[in-house]
Amino acid sequence: MASALGFATAVRARPVAAQKRATAPKARSARVVTQAKRDGPVIIGLAADSGCGKSTFMRRMTSLFGGKATPPEGGNPDSNTLISDTTTVLCLDDYHLNDRQGRKDSGLTALNLKEQNFDLMYEQVKALKEGKSVDKPIYNHVTGVFDPAEKIESPEVLILEGLHPFADTRVRDMFDFKIYLDISDEVKFAWKIQRDMAERGHSLESIKASIEARKPDFDAFVDPQKEFSDVIIQVLPTQLIPDDNEGKILRVRMIMKEGLENFDAPFLFDEGSTISWIPCGRKLTCSYPGIKFFYGPDTFYGKEVTVLEMDGQFDKLEELIYVESHLSNTSTKFYGEITQQMLKYQNGPGSNNGTGFFQTIVGLKVREVYERIAEKEVVVK
Amino acid sequence: MASALGFATAVRARPVAAQKRATAPKARSARVVTQAKRDGPVIIGLAADSGCGKSTFMRRMTSLFGGKATPPEGGNPDSNTLISDTTTVLCLDDYHLNDRQGRKDSGLTALNLKEQNFDLMYEQVKALKEGKSVDKPIYNHVTGVFDPAEKIESPEVLILEGLHPFADTRVRDMFDFKIYLDISDEVKFAWKIQRDMAERGHSLESIKASIEARKPDFDAFVDPQKEFSDVIIQVLPTQLIPDDNEGKILRVRMIMKEGLENFDAPFLFDEGSTISWIPCGRKLTCSYPGIKFFYGPDTFYGKEVTVLEMDGQFDKLEELIYVESHLSNTSTKFYGEITQQMLKYQNGPGSNNGTGFFQTIVGLKVREVYERIAEKEVVVK
Repeated sequence: MASALGFATAVRARPVAAQKRATAPKARSARVVTQAKRDGPVIIGLAADSGCGKSTFMRRMTSLFGGKATPPEGGNPDSNTLISDTTTVLCLDDYHLNDRQGRKDSGLTALNLKEQNFDLMYEQVKALKEGKSVDKPIYNHVTGVFDPAEKIESPEVLILEGLHPFADTRVRDMFDFKIYLDISDEVKFAWKIQRDMAERGHSLESIKASIEARKPDFDAFVDPQKEFSDVIIQVLPTQLIPDDNEGKILRVRMIMKEGLENFDAPFLFDEGSTISWIPCGRKLTCSYPGIKFFYGPDTFYGKEVTVLEMDGQFDKLEELIYVESHLSNTSTKFYGEITQQMLKYQNGPGSNNGTGFFQTIVGLKVREVYERIAEKEVVVK
Repeated sequence: MASALGFATAVRARPVAAQKRATAPKARSARVVTQAKRDGPVIIGLAADSGCGKSTFMRRMTSLFGGKATPPEGGNPDSNTLISDTTTVLCLDDYHLNDRQGRKDSGLTALNLKEQNFDLMYEQVKALKEGKSVDKPIYNHVTGVFDPAEKIESPEVLILEGLHPFADTRVRDMFDFKIYLDISDEVKFAWKIQRDMAERGHSLESIKASIEARKPDFDAFVDPQKEFSDVIIQVLPTQLIPDDNEGKILRVRMIMKEGLENFDAPFLFDEGSTISWIPCGRKLTCSYPGIKFFYGPDTFYGKEVTVLEMDGQFDKLEELIYVESHLSNTSTKFYGEITQQMLKYQNGPGSNNGTGFFQTIVGLKVREVYERIAEKEVVVK
């Protein structure tokens, strides 16, 4: 099983890259300037549970490469794939072994490793990595059956999102950058209550039962992939309000492995130290319960990590740009790029708190990983 | 009594002065370049209990003006006065109303306001402020009687230190800058045990009794002056070691009134916000229990204040210069001036912790207050 296997990312020391900052923030768009062709795509993985905002995360990330990500033109309207000029996002649910009826027969959940076709996943990711196109199955989430396969061309940036990107070592070893979106049980529960009880009329008991039914398999088959991830975005209840369990105000931690080859951890004020920062004060006023940042070293699965944490939410733009201007190593291309991105998706979930903030920063980091590996430049204009 | 009277310092907004930093740290000395003569001295007050390191504080402060502070040449060897080229430090014990025997007769302690000759204190400080010389009494701490008066000329900088500089409103209103050195009971007790028990062979009971006997008068007559001080240096037990009461590792807070005319509060990283900072980490390693800084707004006697706090102690020079280089608005004249000053008095008490650190910063601030008011420049070379 995944957790029994080694940590795959090569650890090599490299100097911290100077951050590029240029002009004042205004609306910009991005495009890729090809300087030299690397063979095959840069491959990014995102592990996360279903219903945890992966699609918003993907929109935040792909938009940083320019162009609009849409389902394959003229294809199956229920396709799970999103394609832009540079990026292709595949959903790993397409590599389920059985359809919904098949899982009823096997008695296993979709979370179970045995219900994934890792051989096919490996073959097709390998083919895409080698620049070849593949005919990928489509798991139709509406009908619960497999639709006819769709043709996927090898892109510049291949993003694989789903429940098990890092469970099979053959697939795991092909990633250039591995992200895990980790929603705590308390927050999952609060979100599910909000959606299923308030919007869909489910009972509190049925929601509790459905969460508890999924939890053992989730803990056994999805959660262990955190150990192999380069960056983990952890979403927790706020600590600014004692005993809060509304799940509206969130504490979000970005846990970053030390020594990654193409990733320099963002930091607050003094790299390598431990800092907590409440930006609200005499210069910036925030409404209750305010905003609190933390930056410092920690360990995670026995490895050294750096943690950047935000608790609370932004009331307005000033707070966002104020915070952005005090962070270093964010891989922005111009002053205010994080703020601009957050405004672009201001109606998406997490746009006023650490989930959107760190998803945006991870998107910027992914763009930089791509630029370094592919030796290409994404030009914003 | 003091606490019933208003806060005397004028509050006027002024822009934050840019900090001067020039070359690498090396040994320098200071001298005063007179540009324009202001009538009378700049007057600085320091309130503190006896035996709390006032003399080290005074040495740290006066040395920043250049020259060496010594008792009046050819005068009484038991004089409490210290004179340098620019500064004169007077001890307010010289304005006790009665000698030791007189206090035995009155039954009052030297802490009592009734045992101070505030009329004479006021008259003589006023005369010195007007540029006149005075014949000041000398209270001989060895014999407990008054010695013949000594002649004091009006200096450039007049520093009055003692138990009651801010108790009498007439005297209080003459100060340009007011400092209170506030040693917590726990630390006083630990220090007294160290000195009186370990070095002088007193019993624990007698030390406890002597502290408890002084405490009511101290609380009634000395402590209330905090309310009228511009800067309070508070010395507390460390919070880095749970339940520590050894008094060896200290948490020192510099509490600074907001809106002072000639004083801009030093800050960490982001002026006006709330920050806690542990500089020890990947770049700087410190031995147990480490060092922790805090910076943020607070209230004190109902007034807005800014607090800068240091808990723990420095192991070696690197830590000192590392911390100094991350502080802004310290009024140093060159990079490393705080570190150089701390090294100069490295054998004095508090040189490896927040007491020496903040005494040095307050000294730099006093020098700046002098420069702004007197319109003169203290040149370091």
